[in-house]
Amino acid sequence: MVRARRAERFSLVSTLIAVALFPTAACQAREASSALPDDVRTTAASLHKEALAGTRAFDIVRSLTLEVGPRPAGSRAYDAAVEWGLRTLKELGFSNVHAEKATVPHWVRGAESGEILAPYRQPVHLAALGGSIGTPEEGIEAPVIEVPSLDEVDKLDPAEVQGKIVFYDVKMERQKDGSGYGRAVPVRGAGASRAAKLGAVAVLIRSIGTDNNRTPHTGGLRYQEGVRQIPAAALSNPDADLLAAEIASGKPVTFRLKLGARALPEVETASVVGEIPGREKPEEIVLLGAHLDSWDLGTGAIDDGAGVAIMIEAARRIGLLPRRPRRTIRVVLYANEEFGTSGAKAYVEAHKDELGRHVMAGESDFGSGRVWRIASRVDPAKLPVVADLAKLLGVEQGKNDSGGGADIGALAPAHVPVIALSQDGTTYFDYHHTSNDTLDKIDPKDLDQNVAAWAAVAYAIAEMPGDLGRAPEVSGGRE
Amino acid sequence: MVRARRAERFSLVSTLIAVALFPTAACQAREASSALPDDVRTTAASLHKEALAGTRAFDIVRSLTLEVGPRPAGSRAYDAAVEWGLRTLKELGFSNVHAEKATVPHWVRGAESGEILAPYRQPVHLAALGGSIGTPEEGIEAPVIEVPSLDEVDKLDPAEVQGKIVFYDVKMERQKDGSGYGRAVPVRGAGASRAAKLGAVAVLIRSIGTDNNRTPHTGGLRYQEGVRQIPAAALSNPDADLLAAEIASGKPVTFRLKLGARALPEVETASVVGEIPGREKPEEIVLLGAHLDSWDLGTGAIDDGAGVAIMIEAARRIGLLPRRPRRTIRVVLYANEEFGTSGAKAYVEAHKDELGRHVMAGESDFGSGRVWRIASRVDPAKLPVVADLAKLLGVEQGKNDSGGGADIGALAPAHVPVIALSQDGTTYFDYHHTSNDTLDKIDPKDLDQNVAAWAAVAYAIAEMPGDLGRAPEVSGGRE
Repeated sequence: MVRARRAERFSLVSTLIAVALFPTAACQAREASSALPDDVRTTAASLHKEALAGTRAFDIVRSLTLEVGPRPAGSRAYDAAVEWGLRTLKELGFSNVHAEKATVPHWVRGAESGEILAPYRQPVHLAALGGSIGTPEEGIEAPVIEVPSLDEVDKLDPAEVQGKIVFYDVKMERQKDGSGYGRAVPVRGAGASRAAKLGAVAVLIRSIGTDNNRTPHTGGLRYQEGVRQIPAAALSNPDADLLAAEIASGKPVTFRLKLGARALPEVETASVVGEIPGREKPEEIVLLGAHLDSWDLGTGAIDDGAGVAIMIEAARRIGLLPRRPRRTIRVVLYANEEFGTSGAKAYVEAHKDELGRHVMAGESDFGSGRVWRIASRVDPAKLPVVADLAKLLGVEQGKNDSGGGADIGALAPAHVPVIALSQDGTTYFDYHHTSNDTLDKIDPKDLDQNVAAWAAVAYAIAEMPGDLGRAPEVSGGRE
Repeated sequence: MVRARRAERFSLVSTLIAVALFPTAACQAREASSALPDDVRTTAASLHKEALAGTRAFDIVRSLTLEVGPRPAGSRAYDAAVEWGLRTLKELGFSNVHAEKATVPHWVRGAESGEILAPYRQPVHLAALGGSIGTPEEGIEAPVIEVPSLDEVDKLDPAEVQGKIVFYDVKMERQKDGSGYGRAVPVRGAGASRAAKLGAVAVLIRSIGTDNNRTPHTGGLRYQEGVRQIPAAALSNPDADLLAAEIASGKPVTFRLKLGARALPEVETASVVGEIPGREKPEEIVLLGAHLDSWDLGTGAIDDGAGVAIMIEAARRIGLLPRRPRRTIRVVLYANEEFGTSGAKAYVEAHKDELGRHVMAGESDFGSGRVWRIASRVDPAKLPVVADLAKLLGVEQGKNDSGGGADIGALAPAHVPVIALSQDGTTYFDYHHTSNDTLDKIDPKDLDQNVAAWAAVAYAIAEMPGDLGRAPEVSGGRE
C-alpha cells in the first residue's frame, strides 16, 4: 500500500467535503466535461418515463407469436415471419422498410422418441439438437455411458466408449446474469464430435436449462470437420435425472433413440430492416437488432419475439418525437440467429461500406427480464456518456468489454461501438429453446421497462453532438 | 341476537378468567374428560418427532417411480407395481402381505396430436382425457366453438354446435386447499357428453391445472349413458391461451384432432395389502390407504407415489415400536383409483364382514405438500380426540364432514370413521396428471412431515382405549 502525501490527502479531503456539501455542483462539473448535454438528457428521460407507463411491445410480440408462431430458419413459417416483419414495420410508420437477402440452413426435426430399455423401462422426453443427423428409422439401441463433463470424455479409453451412447450429465446453474449458460453450453455444441472421436454411436445431454419441467431444451450443435457425425439429443432435466438414477443402480443401462432429424438444402430468405431516418446525419446509423427466427418447439416469445418487440417499439417511440434525432435509428430483424447467424453475416457483407458510419449497435436477445445493467464497448474516453446513461436508466454500469450479442458480434471487426443492456435472466433458461417458450412467460410491464431503456439509449446516442468513438478490439469478454 | 342472562354471563367471565390465569389446569381438565391418555399421547408425540428427523419415505417413492414408473390401470407396468408393492412390504417387515383381486379398465392412449389449422396454423400440445374414444385415423377436422363454462354449453342452440369441436375454456384457480380443482373439474368429467348432446364432434378443454407449462393435464371423463361418445382432450394452458387468442381474432377457427386412444378388455389385477398386527385387538383395523396406479404420462411421483410412500413408512415406523399398538394397522395400496376406484370397491366387497371393525380410515392422495389441518368424520362425541391430535401435530382442526379421499370414500356406507390430513396443495395442480409428475417435484422433508403426522394419528387411534365411534352420514362436505 502506498501512503498518500499530505498535499494529496488534503486535496482528497477537500473534494470529499465539497461533494458532501455541494453534490449537485460537483456532479454538474463532472458531467459538463464529457457526458450528454441537458437537452438530450431531458428528452431521453422523457422517452424513458413515458415508456414505463405502457407501450405496444406486448401487442407486437403477441401478434408475432400468434400469427406466425414457431419460425425456424429455412421454414415456410420463417417466410411468413418476414412478411409479418415488413407489414408490421410499415404499419408502425417506419421508413425504408425492406428485406435483405440471407441464405440459411434448413434443418427439420421430424418425429423423435427415446426410451430407457434396461434396467427399468421408461419412456423419456427428448429433443434432437439443432443440426443433428437422424438415426436409422428403427433407431439406435445401445448401452449408455455417463460422463460428468465435456473434458472427462477425452479421458476415457475408446474401448469403453466404442458402440455406446454417451450421456453428458452437466447441470446448468441459475444466475441472474445467465452466466450458468456459458459454462454449461459447450457440451451441446461440441459434445457429439468429442464422443464420436472415441467411437460413440450417439450422444444424449442433460438439457441446458434451469427448470425441472419435462420440456427438453434444444439448441445448435457443431459437428467438427473430419469427424464422423453422430445423432445428438437433449433429455429434459427430469428425464436426465431418471437416466442418471438408472445408471446409479449399477445395472447395465440400454437406451433406444429415434431421431427423424435431417438437413434439407439451404434456403434463400431475408432479414427485415426498417428505419427512423435522422434529421441531420441520416447516413450515421444507430443499429437496434433482434432476431426474427426462433426454434421450432415453442412460439419464440422470449427467444426472440421479446427482443423484436422491444427494439421495434423503442425505435417507433423515437420516431414519434416532435423532432427526430440527428442520426438514423435502424431496426434490423435478423434472419437465422439460431443456426450460425448467417443473417448477421449477410448484413455485414451487404453494408460493409457503411459500417464505419454505424455509431452504435445494440441487441435484445435475452427474453423480457428487466434491464439492470448497462455495459459497453466504446472508446474509453466516451465512458462518461455510458455513466450518464446508467444514471438516467437507474441501472448499474458494467464493463467496457461487451460483445453485445450473437448478431451484432459480427460488427466487431468494424469497431462498431456497442451498448449492451443486461437483463435479469433468472428464469430465462427455464423456457429457452423449449416448447414452453410461449407468450404467457412475458410480463408486459417488463417489456415496457426494456423499451424505456432502449428508447432512451438509442435516442441519446442518435442525438448527442459527438459520438462513442470506435470500439476497441474485442478481448473475449462478455457483458 | 339473544342476550345472555346475568348468571350465564358471570359464569362465562369466570371461565375466561380461569383459563387466562390457569391455562394448563383448564386444558388438563378438558382433556382428562375425553381425549387421549398421557401414555398414548407421549408415544404418538415421540413417533411424530422422530419421523421429522428423517424417514425412508423418499427412498420408497424413488424406488417406485424409478423401477416401475408410469403404471396405469390394466397395464403390464401396473402388474409390475403390484410385484413391487408385495416385495417392498415384505422387505419392510409387514405381516400378512398379499394381493387382493380387483378388475380394472384398460385404456390406452396411443399416438395423439392436435393442430390449429386456421386462421393461424399452430401445432398444440394436448392429451386425451382418460377413457376417451379415439378419432378416425385421419383425425377430426372441424370448426371450433368456445364456451366459458359447462353450464353455458347447455344454453347454446344445437345449430351452433352441430359438427363442431367444443372448446371449454375454464381456468382453475390456485388455492392452498386445492379447492379450485373441485370447481374446475366437472368440465373434464361431463363436458364431452354435454357437448355431444348438441351435436359436437369432439371436445377440447383447457387443462385442469394451475401451471403455465406445455404439459397437458389428463384425467378421467365419464360418458353419459345413452349419449353418443365423442373424443375429448385437454390442451396445456399455454395452448389453451393460443386457441383462445385465435378465436378472439374473430376469424373462423379450424382444428385437427388425432387421438389414438382406445379401450381394451378389462384386466384382472390386484390391490396390495400389508399389516402391522395389533397386540390386543388384531381384528380391529386402522386402515391407511393410497393408490398404486398412476396416469400414463408421468412417473406418478406425487400422484400417488408420495401417498404410497407416506402410508407405508408411517405404518412401518409404528411396527418398529417396542410395543405394537392394540389394534392392527392395515396399509392398502389400491388398484385403479384413476379409472373409477374399482380397487376400492373390490376391497369393500371382499371385507364387508369386517367393515364394522374398521375403527378408522385415512388416505394420502394429494402429493407431498405439508399437512396443515386435520379434518374428520367421527362420532361428534369423539371430537376432543381429534382436537388433541391437532394439538399434537401442531395443525388446525377442520370440520367433521370429511369424505377422506376417493378410495376410502367407498367405506362411508359402513360408517367407518375418517381422519383426513389436509396437505398444502399450492403447487400440486401444477403437475397433477401430467408428464411432469416426476420425483424431482418432491421435497423429502415434506414427505417426512406427512409420515410424522400419519404415524402419530394411526398409532394413537390404534392404541387408545376407546375408539372414534361410528361416522355420521356423509353430508356431501369435503375436508
